[in-house]
Amino acid sequence: MPGPELIATLRFDGAGLIPAIAQDWLDGAVLMVAWMNREAIEHTLATGEVHYWSRSRQELWHKGASSGHFQHVRGLRYDCDADVLLLTIEQTGAVACHTGARSCFYEEGAEATAGGPDALPPPADVCTELARVINGRRERPEPGSYTNKLLEGGDNRILKKIGEESAEFVMACKDDDPDAIAGEAADLIFHLQVALAHHGVDWRRVQEVLAERRGAPRRE
Amino acid sequence: MPGPELIATLRFDGAGLIPAIAQDWLDGAVLMVAWMNREAIEHTLATGEVHYWSRSRQELWHKGASSGHFQHVRGLRYDCDADVLLLTIEQTGAVACHTGARSCFYEEGAEATAGGPDALPPPADVCTELARVINGRRERPEPGSYTNKLLEGGDNRILKKIGEESAEFVMACKDDDPDAIAGEAADLIFHLQVALAHHGVDWRRVQEVLAERRGAPRRE
Repeated sequence: MPGPELIATLRFDGAGLIPAIAQDWLDGAVLMVAWMNREAIEHTLATGEVHYWSRSRQELWHKGASSGHFQHVRGLRYDCDADVLLLTIEQTGAVACHTGARSCFYEEGAEATAGGPDALPPPADVCTELARVINGRRERPEPGSYTNKLLEGGDNRILKKIGEESAEFVMACKDDDPDAIAGEAADLIFHLQVALAHHGVDWRRVQEVLAERRGAPRRE
Repeated sequence: MPGPELIATLRFDGAGLIPAIAQDWLDGAVLMVAWMNREAIEHTLATGEVHYWSRSRQELWHKGASSGHFQHVRGLRYDCDADVLLLTIEQTGAVACHTGARSCFYEEGAEATAGGPDALPPPADVCTELARVINGRRERPEPGSYTNKLLEGGDNRILKKIGEESAEFVMACKDDDPDAIAGEAADLIFHLQVALAHHGVDWRRVQEVLAERRGAPRRE
């Protein structure tokens, strides 16, 4: 949809603003929410880099212009009321929040922190969350943990399970048993993630490769 | 964080409202944005089901009370300014939008639709997007598509690749080569997803199993 048509469709508030949610293109994490006006949308569409309207400074805000943390637009949608924008973005430097945290949503319940690079990560897809749990176990082993038992056994224990689980997935497919197929797929992915953790390969790196294969080359 | 403490922390606007983003707990999709006031937050925390404040009706809005499409709360966060809430939810009936679409964000560029169950799905994590591409190929085959070649070959062609790719992943781990490990993991997941598509097993079902394994039992 061309810019003028999009802008004519949107419903701005009394101050001529519309809220915009910036969502990560790979794991679905919500990184921040800010405001746009017509000018900000025009600049965003023209440059492919997100521009907001700063309500505190009352000026156009090219995100990243001062911090280097630009946001490249990969998609732009609006909701059924046309009064909220959803931006699919690739965040330069993996930092969206002014505190240095990846996401502005680093607060949760009693675990509020002051932000920063060690802040609580934002909610994301279940594979990303699983990778976090596995890496947490690697860093803080727990007695009796199956994940720790695998990690302690190293490649030879972990990779034996890759062979076993892939064979079980193949058999479940041959049996055409949907429950078993879903269960064995999950088992295979879990053990694959343990192997990634053992070798220090981030799940996000796998997500990047999958995005490339899907035909969306990564921006440099 | 107890309700009163949370409410004291949040920054409500002049009308006593705060915007709330409802995000799917499995694939990170943004399903809707609505408003809450203190009363709505209290009811949400007390019941575990999302309550908003309807600005048009000026009343407490127990989401799902009339449609049956309740939203079970799995997490609640606020941003660095404490002026936006992020709800992690499990959506009953997989429909959040009043149009019948899964998400209110079914509009994208020129592909705007009228919502409903066939509306454009919301942006989600890259594995979910990949599953959509593969299922799209299954429904609308394209000449020369590798995915279609696999699907046409059926189990015997697809599952041979599972064996091959899992062996290649094992070898990449034994070589301790991070690039190869990420690449082979992506290859294995791609072929696993082709097998799922061939058997009509949704990727979401695998995500559900992974969430259960992670210690988050599915609500009924």
